[in-house]
Amino acid sequence: MSVDLKRDLAAAQARVEARLDRALHHDRGDLADAMRHAMIGGKGLRGFLVTESARLHGVAEDDAVHAACAVEALHAYSLVHDDLPCMDDDDLRRGQPTVHRKWSEAVAVLAGDALQTLCFELLAEAPNAVAMVRSMAEAAGRGGMVGGQMRDIAAETAAEPLSLEEITLLQAGKTGALLTWAASAGPRMAGADEGALLEYGQCIGLAFQIADDILDVEGDAGTVGKAVGKDEAAGKATFVSILGLDEAKRRAADIVDVAVSALSVYGEDAAKLRELAHFVISRKS
Amino acid sequence: MSVDLKRDLAAAQARVEARLDRALHHDRGDLADAMRHAMIGGKGLRGFLVTESARLHGVAEDDAVHAACAVEALHAYSLVHDDLPCMDDDDLRRGQPTVHRKWSEAVAVLAGDALQTLCFELLAEAPNAVAMVRSMAEAAGRGGMVGGQMRDIAAETAAEPLSLEEITLLQAGKTGALLTWAASAGPRMAGADEGALLEYGQCIGLAFQIADDILDVEGDAGTVGKAVGKDEAAGKATFVSILGLDEAKRRAADIVDVAVSALSVYGEDAAKLRELAHFVISRKS
Repeated sequence: MSVDLKRDLAAAQARVEARLDRALHHDRGDLADAMRHAMIGGKGLRGFLVTESARLHGVAEDDAVHAACAVEALHAYSLVHDDLPCMDDDDLRRGQPTVHRKWSEAVAVLAGDALQTLCFELLAEAPNAVAMVRSMAEAAGRGGMVGGQMRDIAAETAAEPLSLEEITLLQAGKTGALLTWAASAGPRMAGADEGALLEYGQCIGLAFQIADDILDVEGDAGTVGKAVGKDEAAGKATFVSILGLDEAKRRAADIVDVAVSALSVYGEDAAKLRELAHFVISRKS
Repeated sequence: MSVDLKRDLAAAQARVEARLDRALHHDRGDLADAMRHAMIGGKGLRGFLVTESARLHGVAEDDAVHAACAVEALHAYSLVHDDLPCMDDDDLRRGQPTVHRKWSEAVAVLAGDALQTLCFELLAEAPNAVAMVRSMAEAAGRGGMVGGQMRDIAAETAAEPLSLEEITLLQAGKTGALLTWAASAGPRMAGADEGALLEYGQCIGLAFQIADDILDVEGDAGTVGKAVGKDEAAGKATFVSILGLDEAKRRAADIVDVAVSALSVYGEDAAKLRELAHFVISRKS
């Protein structure tokens, strides 16, 4: 990742955290602390996608920040609930103890719940708010992210390992829906055509998940910031287990090429999103 | 409860369930089944409050049904998560096995999550959608329902039992916020003054909770549809433990009188809401 992209991602994450501080301004105690803990220290990828796609469509940074913070809140809620003992049972997230380890399972359930609510509270402040709420509900709910997580759970007890098509569908929900939402948030707020950025978002969503499966095999927990090697230990079908490491890497690179092509309508203006697409498959955490 | 009110509540609940069926039309499998299970068989009190306050403000039934279904979805999510082993650990709800007992804890976490998302999906279809989303986020989140649940959890490990003021504050969030939101949804959709129905909602919210504490002492599980006697067994401070049974009943009746007075601006039109206020403290389940 270039120094510039690193700086831009950090700046986007700082704006998200500042917006969060404003939202939680009056809140004290474990619930607010757990919500902050869950939202701080991330890469800020989704918030950056919102900010950058907003910039391409002339939406002011101060108007885009609500949606950027909203998608990070939604993402954070999904991680807190996903880490619960009855789900993935993870102790470590972003190099820090997970919410249920630091506080309790009850606090983790409630903090996740409150983070989802916060997402919609923030979207009500966004330009084109009704479309933003409606599209987020679609991306986050039973036909999107939660639907994908449900397929993931069902796969654990299925007699047969998943096929490539089934994994692709599962991941399109679990990881892809929110990344796609974030990438297309800019034109949505501007009331402009979302086509190119929807395609870009779908591609980087898929590439992101393939890269995640690769990291689970090649990464180490210290750098990745969460447990690795879990998929293989669980006998779980992944892009890597089906395609092999080399073919998985080749496919991810091809998909990134498609993502980059989709940006051609934006010309040089989309340089940062181009670089981000490459970063998605080269990241170490 | 009069035959008429019983019929009206059942009709409101039937409309909510029909709206739910439309929303889940394309959804198959455990997630959708668990969402349906959580939403079916309730009293439909919150949905009825939305429908009836909408009628008082000239909002058409077909326009009000989105918000009626939304508040029931939000309520259902809160029950599913509240019943989890790490929260209240309940096996029975509305006389049926709780979602985590019938499916699993993971399904209960996800079904609750998806029900919250569904709430906001439906509110995006309501008249005055942005105000509806914003007010619901306030009622449901860290400063409302979830904030009240968090206080409830904290109280369990506190050195001192809660005072009357602390219980009142806790319940204003945990139970009151959503009932108040529902009672004031009509004028909110119509863009009219919410004052009278906000006061009505706050009063019946408080009366509802006092009645719940009374049922926990006087009711039997078969009629109530969930476990009873839990508060005393847990040594939990309630309106009954602090005020005694007779004084708790007296206060609840006084609060219902205030609720009824608040309706005076609506004259005879508000007869159903008046009867509902009395029902809240006379109910057996």
